[in-house]
Amino acid sequence: MKHVKPGRRQLLQMGAAVGGSLLAGRKALALENEARKLGQPLGPYSERSPFETAVRWTRESQTPETGSSFTPLQESVGVLTPSALHYERHHSGVPTIDPSSHRLVIHGLVDRPLSLSMSEIRRLPSVTRILALECGGNSAGEWAGAGGADVQRSHGLLSGSEWTGVPLSLLLAEAGVRSGASWAIAEGGDACRMMRSIPLAKAMDSSLLAYGQNGEAMRPAQGYPLRLINPGWEGNTNVKWLRSLKLTDQPYMARDETSKYSDLMPDGKARIFTYDMEAKSVITFPSGGHTLPAHGPYEISGLAWSGRGRIERVDVTIDSGRTWQPAVLQEPRLPLALTRFRFEWRFEGQSVVIASRAVDETGYVQPTRAALIAVRGMNSTYHYNGIKPWRIRADGTVINVEG
Amino acid sequence: MKHVKPGRRQLLQMGAAVGGSLLAGRKALALENEARKLGQPLGPYSERSPFETAVRWTRESQTPETGSSFTPLQESVGVLTPSALHYERHHSGVPTIDPSSHRLVIHGLVDRPLSLSMSEIRRLPSVTRILALECGGNSAGEWAGAGGADVQRSHGLLSGSEWTGVPLSLLLAEAGVRSGASWAIAEGGDACRMMRSIPLAKAMDSSLLAYGQNGEAMRPAQGYPLRLINPGWEGNTNVKWLRSLKLTDQPYMARDETSKYSDLMPDGKARIFTYDMEAKSVITFPSGGHTLPAHGPYEISGLAWSGRGRIERVDVTIDSGRTWQPAVLQEPRLPLALTRFRFEWRFEGQSVVIASRAVDETGYVQPTRAALIAVRGMNSTYHYNGIKPWRIRADGTVINVEG
Repeated sequence: MKHVKPGRRQLLQMGAAVGGSLLAGRKALALENEARKLGQPLGPYSERSPFETAVRWTRESQTPETGSSFTPLQESVGVLTPSALHYERHHSGVPTIDPSSHRLVIHGLVDRPLSLSMSEIRRLPSVTRILALECGGNSAGEWAGAGGADVQRSHGLLSGSEWTGVPLSLLLAEAGVRSGASWAIAEGGDACRMMRSIPLAKAMDSSLLAYGQNGEAMRPAQGYPLRLINPGWEGNTNVKWLRSLKLTDQPYMARDETSKYSDLMPDGKARIFTYDMEAKSVITFPSGGHTLPAHGPYEISGLAWSGRGRIERVDVTIDSGRTWQPAVLQEPRLPLALTRFRFEWRFEGQSVVIASRAVDETGYVQPTRAALIAVRGMNSTYHYNGIKPWRIRADGTVINVEG
Repeated sequence: MKHVKPGRRQLLQMGAAVGGSLLAGRKALALENEARKLGQPLGPYSERSPFETAVRWTRESQTPETGSSFTPLQESVGVLTPSALHYERHHSGVPTIDPSSHRLVIHGLVDRPLSLSMSEIRRLPSVTRILALECGGNSAGEWAGAGGADVQRSHGLLSGSEWTGVPLSLLLAEAGVRSGASWAIAEGGDACRMMRSIPLAKAMDSSLLAYGQNGEAMRPAQGYPLRLINPGWEGNTNVKWLRSLKLTDQPYMARDETSKYSDLMPDGKARIFTYDMEAKSVITFPSGGHTLPAHGPYEISGLAWSGRGRIERVDVTIDSGRTWQPAVLQEPRLPLALTRFRFEWRFEGQSVVIASRAVDETGYVQPTRAALIAVRGMNSTYHYNGIKPWRIRADGTVINVEG
C-alpha cells in the first residue's frame, strides 16, 4: 500500500503551519549531549501514559448501577475503541461472574435442551468480526436541539470492537429448532434479568455468542464471560452476561421492548422491534469543546457506520452546508463496523459550520435533523441519526449547534 | 455475512461433547428463582475481570530495564493484541515523555529542517493500518530445538495492533529531500539512543509516524508519544519514542545493525539489513502447556503473518506431517497483519503432532526447521520462521517438540 506523494501545491500549503523554528530544532537535537537516565523496567501488564487522562463520562446519579457512560470520541483515532473506554449502558450494575461456573442454557422449542459451560463454548468453531456497537438512545439529546457540549456527551454511546465467538446458528442446529419456533428470548445474568426478543431469522443469520473482545476476554462491563452480539442492531439487543436463550413462538414484550426502545411516531402509534441502526456519521475532530490552536492545515476526521452494511461514501461540508465534498474513507471498509473518514482543511479564522453525511451501500443517505423530524416527529428517544453540525468560531473554539 | 448452517453430520459430531446434562440445565435455570444483587456501578475506565490473569512473561533479570517480555499468545483470540499485553523489547527501559514537550526533528540532507511538536503532527493527514509486529529474534530458541514450554515463551515476541499516524513520506516532502539522500537514521528517546538505518525507499513507501494504537494514544511501552512504524519489517526497526530522523547518504552501521540483528550464515558471512519478516505461522490452541479436558471436538486455532503481503493459505497437519489440509482463514486477510486460522478437529486420545504451514501472496511457503537450517545453518539468532510442531499426548496434555 503506497502512500500518495504530495504534490508541490500541498507541500506549500503545509509549509506555513508545520515545522516550528530552526531554533526549536537545534534545541531538541541538543538533548543528544545531555545524559539520560534509564526508564521504567519491562513489566507484565502495561498501563497508559500518565499524560493520557480521557475517561468515560457518566452523569451524577443516586443509582450508579443504572445509567450510561460515554466513550471519549473526541480523542478517538482509527476505528477501534479501547475496551477500557467502551461505552456502558447498565440496568442493575456489572455482575462479577466466575466463568468456571457460568452456563448458557438453550431451551424452549428445541429437541435437545443444552446447558453449556464456557470451556465447552470455547472449544467450538468460532469467528471474529470488527463491528460498531451503538446504543439505540445514542445522540437522543439531539432530537431537542444541540445535545451535549461535546461529541462524547452527544454521540459517545458508540464504540467499535473486534468480537470473537461462536455463531449462534451452530448451537441452534445442535439443539434442534422445533417447527413453530420463531423467536429467541435472550436473558442476561444481571440482577434485573435484562431480556430481549430476537427473531429466529437474525439468530440463524448472524448472531454471535461472543467471549472475546479486542484480542482478550471481554471486560466485565461488556458482558463477561458471554455476550449475545447481534451485528448492526441497537446495543440493547446485544444482551450481556448471557445465561439463557429460550426459543418461543412469539416475542416476550419485555420491559426493554415496550416501555423502552420503542419509537413513538407523530400519529401516536409506536414502532417496536426497530432493531437496525441506520447509517450515521459524526465528526470527532474538530468537535465541541476543541480549540484550534493556530491557523493553517487541519485534518477533519470522524466516524461513519451503518447497521445495513458498508459505508459507501461520506460527504463533508466546510461552508455551513452550501457545498459537500467527499471525504477519504479508511480501508478496509468493513460492513457494520466503524469507518474512519478524513478531510483535509485549512482554518484561517473563518466562522463556519462543519458537518458530515454518511451514505451506506444500500443507498440510504443520513438525513438532516429537519428531514428526520418531518418523518418521525418529536416524540422519539431512540434511533436519532441526523447530520451533526459543529460550529467553528473565529477564535478557533468549537461548539455544538442545532442542525 | 451469513454463517454456514451445519449439516446433519456435523451436528451429530458435536452432540457427543457439548450440551452438558439436562440436570445441569435445570440447575442453571433454577437461578431464576433466586434473588440477585446489584452489580458494580458504571465507571470511568474498565479493568478486566479478576478471573483473567494472563500477563506478559519476562525472564528474571538483574537489569530489568533491558530485555524482552512475551505476549500470552496461548490465550489470544482474533487478530489483535490488547495494548497492555503487547510484547516489549527494550534496551534501557521505558522513558516517561511529556507529549507537550516532545519534538520530532527531521534534518540532515533536507532543504528545510523540521522540528515538529506532537500537536503539529496530530493535525496532519493520517492513516490507520492493522499490522503485525514481530521481534526479529522471535522464536530464536527454536534454532536449537524446541524452545520454550509454551507458545508465549516460544513465539510471544509477536503482537497485532491497529496503528494510526502520519505517512512519513508527507513530512519528507515537506522537508525537501536533497539529492544524494538515500537513508533515514531514526533515533529513539530512550537513554541508549536506540538507532536504526532505514532505506529512504521504505520511508517514502510505507513508513508511518504513529501516535495511535488500538484506538487511543499508544502505551509508553510501545513508544509513546511517537513511534516509527515500518510495516512488515522486524520489530527493532520500528523505533520507539522517536525524536529524530536524519537523512544521510549511507547507513550508520549502528549497534543494532552490526553486533545485533544481523544473520551469520554457514559460510561465515553475515547478512545485515535483513528487514523483512518472512511468512510464518504458529498454532496457539492447543499448544504447549494446554491440556484438552475431554475427548471430542476442538477448534485448532492459530496466527499466520507475512512481512511480504497477505496470507494466501495456511495448511494444518493433524497426523504428524503425513498429510496437510487447508485451514479456514478469518477475513479480511489484511496485508502484513495477523491472520487467524482455524481448523475443526476431534481429539479421541490419539498421540499426534500438529503443526501449521503458512503460504503468502508471493507464493513463499513457510519452511520446516530442517529446510531452514539447510540454508541458514545454526549460527543465526534472528529471523527463525520454521514450521512449529506441538505434540498432543494421549492424556490430552500438549508439549513443545522439535520440528
